[in-house]
Amino acid sequence: MMQALDTQVNPMSGEEVDGGVAGAGVNQRPTTLQWGGPNGVSTNMGSPGPLGSLTPSPATRSKIEQIKQWSLSTYKCTRQILAEKMGKGIRTVDGELEANIELLRETHQKYLNILRLAKLLTSHFYNTVATQAALGECFSDLAQKSPELQQEFLYNAETQKNLSKNGETLLGALNFFVSSLSTLCNKTIEDTLITIRHYENARLEFDAYRCDLEELSAHGGPAQATKVVEAKASFEAQRDKYERLRGDVQIKMKFLHENKVKVMHKQLLLLHNAVSAYFSGNQSSLEATLKQFNIKVKTPNSSSPSWLEQ
Amino acid sequence: MMQALDTQVNPMSGEEVDGGVAGAGVNQRPTTLQWGGPNGVSTNMGSPGPLGSLTPSPATRSKIEQIKQWSLSTYKCTRQILAEKMGKGIRTVDGELEANIELLRETHQKYLNILRLAKLLTSHFYNTVATQAALGECFSDLAQKSPELQQEFLYNAETQKNLSKNGETLLGALNFFVSSLSTLCNKTIEDTLITIRHYENARLEFDAYRCDLEELSAHGGPAQATKVVEAKASFEAQRDKYERLRGDVQIKMKFLHENKVKVMHKQLLLLHNAVSAYFSGNQSSLEATLKQFNIKVKTPNSSSPSWLEQ
Repeated sequence: MMQALDTQVNPMSGEEVDGGVAGAGVNQRPTTLQWGGPNGVSTNMGSPGPLGSLTPSPATRSKIEQIKQWSLSTYKCTRQILAEKMGKGIRTVDGELEANIELLRETHQKYLNILRLAKLLTSHFYNTVATQAALGECFSDLAQKSPELQQEFLYNAETQKNLSKNGETLLGALNFFVSSLSTLCNKTIEDTLITIRHYENARLEFDAYRCDLEELSAHGGPAQATKVVEAKASFEAQRDKYERLRGDVQIKMKFLHENKVKVMHKQLLLLHNAVSAYFSGNQSSLEATLKQFNIKVKTPNSSSPSWLEQ
Repeated sequence: MMQALDTQVNPMSGEEVDGGVAGAGVNQRPTTLQWGGPNGVSTNMGSPGPLGSLTPSPATRSKIEQIKQWSLSTYKCTRQILAEKMGKGIRTVDGELEANIELLRETHQKYLNILRLAKLLTSHFYNTVATQAALGECFSDLAQKSPELQQEFLYNAETQKNLSKNGETLLGALNFFVSSLSTLCNKTIEDTLITIRHYENARLEFDAYRCDLEELSAHGGPAQATKVVEAKASFEAQRDKYERLRGDVQIKMKFLHENKVKVMHKQLLLLHNAVSAYFSGNQSSLEATLKQFNIKVKTPNSSSPSWLEQ
């Protein structure tokens, strides 16, 4: 019983006998391997624990079965990774999908960079607006106390205060842009990227079980028939999982693309219109833009005319 | 000789005899007093050094004379400060001049605050402009790689790049404003404030010698005639010094006022015109303003038309 268990638990020896793979370079227990396994379960194989008992309980047996499955899968996937890295293994490639995934990852990075810069711009602009407000107060104060320079201080005070007030409206637009882009990058795109990572794991497992089946079919004699049937079942299960996840990724990426274009179209339009309105001194156009995008900004005197119209 | 010297060096005892002032509360050597004296000389009275010699050299005598003068002046001025603080001394007051000095000090503080805020604004605006340039680059890059959002990215790239370019021109104006205001606050006004501090010291000395003379004239008998003549000469020297410095202050403040109004008029006009031009998107007006004030800004494409005219 111990001998049989040992053979089963150590998939390396099992594979060496069954598939005849020359495992010289990887002839070690998979305990040191970093592969997370299909369920992401990481089990410490170094302490067999209940294996010392001659009559294991059903719970122990189930646990042993899990460990066996995990070890087998880990071994197969690791072997596949190594084979692919050494250019020996055959890798299932969906060229178009992989190119799209690569493009999505690139776009994600670029959008994250825009998000970072937009946050930075908002922060610097916030400080600028606050300083303009303080400067406006200072100029107002000096206008009252400098008869010879009253006019000069007055119109500077007016300009700085209006810039500060309109700046707060633009800050509303910038905050909305940052918030929407953050949701797009960190929630919407990230959700698809998680499915893509599941799909990529499934592709690896599928290839691992496919190679396994191909080797068994090629080298196995009639005595291996049961093993071939088992391997075929595993392979088909992995293929179904892979194809289901590939379908998920394709659908998610299609919807993400549409959503991304829609969100970015809206946000880029908002950003451009708000920034152009503010930096051309058009307060009414700036407020119209914010109204158009349903952005609420706390401006106590929003009904006053544009500072350039005064 | 030692006894006579000691009496002369310690002006407290001399004054007690001459003027009959009850010095019980201040009956101590003036070594611990913080008054800088008319020449700002601070001498350590704790170590008399050459006083131990019975026949002092001419150099030693001159030094002793200096110490004596300084001690006398320090004592008189300290007594005057204490008397003024206790509301007993009579203080020479030039109401108009003192009001103007107070106003100048207030204005100086307010201008320093504007300078601080203008520096802060320049710094925040510099960061904003740099972020706009980076964002413009990002948008340009994405315009090439996003066929569906090409237009949206393109016009945002254009806007941010133009804002950044024009922002550099405005930064030129802000830097010029900060530099001129800094010269006004830290050189021009400061120079007059130094003269004012000299004038205020001279006023204190003048009042101290005036009180001294008044006391001598009131209480002194015929035996004190020489001392009264001496005190009168000292009083007149201090009065001349005080009046000369008062004249200096009046002239300096008059010129400073004219200069300050001229500089501030120019700088406030520049600030307003440059800020208004920039924040109304009028690049040609912004450049005309800088040209008008002879401000050179490194803009590689300054001949291109305004971004709002495009």
